[in-house]
Amino acid sequence: MDGQISESTMEEKTKCQSLSPYNVRDLVDSVDAFLFDCDGVIWKGDSLIDGVPETLETLRSMKLVFVTNNSRKSRSQYAKKFNSLGISVTMDEIFTSSFAAAMYLKVNDFPKDKKVYVIGEEGILEELELAGFTGLGGPEDGKKTVLLRSNSLFEHDKSVGAVVVGLDQYINFYKLQYGTLCIRENPGCLFIATNRDAVGHLTNLQEWPGAGCMVAAMCGSTQKEPIVVGKPSIFMMDFLLKKFNIPTSRMCMVGDRLDTDILFGLNAGCRTLLVLSGVTSISTLEDISNHIQPEYYSSKVSDIPKFLSAATL
Amino acid sequence: MDGQISESTMEEKTKCQSLSPYNVRDLVDSVDAFLFDCDGVIWKGDSLIDGVPETLETLRSMKLVFVTNNSRKSRSQYAKKFNSLGISVTMDEIFTSSFAAAMYLKVNDFPKDKKVYVIGEEGILEELELAGFTGLGGPEDGKKTVLLRSNSLFEHDKSVGAVVVGLDQYINFYKLQYGTLCIRENPGCLFIATNRDAVGHLTNLQEWPGAGCMVAAMCGSTQKEPIVVGKPSIFMMDFLLKKFNIPTSRMCMVGDRLDTDILFGLNAGCRTLLVLSGVTSISTLEDISNHIQPEYYSSKVSDIPKFLSAATL
Repeated sequence: MDGQISESTMEEKTKCQSLSPYNVRDLVDSVDAFLFDCDGVIWKGDSLIDGVPETLETLRSMKLVFVTNNSRKSRSQYAKKFNSLGISVTMDEIFTSSFAAAMYLKVNDFPKDKKVYVIGEEGILEELELAGFTGLGGPEDGKKTVLLRSNSLFEHDKSVGAVVVGLDQYINFYKLQYGTLCIRENPGCLFIATNRDAVGHLTNLQEWPGAGCMVAAMCGSTQKEPIVVGKPSIFMMDFLLKKFNIPTSRMCMVGDRLDTDILFGLNAGCRTLLVLSGVTSISTLEDISNHIQPEYYSSKVSDIPKFLSAATL
Repeated sequence: MDGQISESTMEEKTKCQSLSPYNVRDLVDSVDAFLFDCDGVIWKGDSLIDGVPETLETLRSMKLVFVTNNSRKSRSQYAKKFNSLGISVTMDEIFTSSFAAAMYLKVNDFPKDKKVYVIGEEGILEELELAGFTGLGGPEDGKKTVLLRSNSLFEHDKSVGAVVVGLDQYINFYKLQYGTLCIRENPGCLFIATNRDAVGHLTNLQEWPGAGCMVAAMCGSTQKEPIVVGKPSIFMMDFLLKKFNIPTSRMCMVGDRLDTDILFGLNAGCRTLLVLSGVTSISTLEDISNHIQPEYYSSKVSDIPKFLSAATL
């Protein structure tokens, strides 16, 4: 699965091709929008990945959208991060799973007099507020402890109508009990997961438990399954479709994770490009146990302008 | 499914009978040991359930064993609890899931120079120490926080060869990362769950997230499944068999949970008695979605002496 495969025009559609000067134009010319995952694609922790500014510059004539499962930040916090790295991106071009959670409540007419309990960080609370909802919990409840005393009752707000669970570095027993009581005891209470990534690069040097860890904990105590709004769920695709009016077949999802980014792209009917600058190695991609095949793969996003230049020579 | 069914001697073995004066002797005369779950059977929180002392008195000529999934306490802490409630029970009659975790390591010749990381409470650390192992983590690490700074590395002990996860009211992101790194990065590191109960009566008035919550969190981040040593796994049965030399067909498991106690009894080939003094209601037992049928059910353990008296009249 290397250069020689991509030269063949007899290539089966389902087989993953290495991106190259021979096929890059086929991909670029056939789409009107590029959807980029961020971590492992645009940056790693706080460092920009090589060649990203030039890549975005080259593709600027198309619609560019940044779709991330990271729920810790809001869209505006993300826009700040882009700008601090020297890339000009507006809030409207960013789709975080924290935003997706708020939008899920909005499109489902979640009553404004009901509250939302958050097992997660600031990004979720901020997006809920922007959408007009009242969030409880979050980092604040990370300081609270429980009192396991006979006959003392742990109280919870009966007006909580949804629990949103995302990555939470302040996870504790208090929050787990609070969220569990809401889901088990408040009639009709929704259980929403921003995403289920097992781990994520919270720092440059290593991976940390992801939202999938906190979501699983809540599944363990409630014995219920959540509504997932981030990748690979295609909930966010509805927004992209409405907003940009571009068919999914003319979008290309670029990501570093097979089970979220690429699956998201495949689920939605997009073109797909896996980059090897994040969590997935070529051996994982080619492993017999992997059943998620992107249409193309390449080492990093800057291969796009590089191959485009080579193709025009 | 009430009194009239138990009067029939044509009763199918697989059908659940209400315990009564008509069948109590069949059960009691056919066993040499009673295995009791504790919470919901012997006590609820810190209150003894009605008639327990008389019941144990009546059955004292047989072997009595207390088998609990609660990993928060060690056997000696449990013996103290029994004694504080006015019931004389020795450490040897108690089998906690914390003890089971230590015994699992012992029978599998876990090297004494390897360490055990504990996501759980004092009971696990105490049983590990009694068995000659070195435990790390536990409540102590509940005070620790993580530093999510670029280029700062979260270090873990490479000599950890097993992670034991039980109910942990001090659960936090530090421990989840520590345990996850051990399981993902230390070659051959074992992932042991004391049990997977979704919730438990940590206080009299309500349920709280159980070990199943913390275990699920670790499954979520490691993408691995644990070795379960508590009920319904029959690992502990090996000990009971060796220790008491009583065939499982001559043991009766008495519990309040279908998916742990009764399943444990059925898995091991024991007689089974469900009591309705804990988490399971008659409607749950009779619900069409329930596929775990005990041999007998009754409102509480003191029905045994009550029905025995009625039977001899």
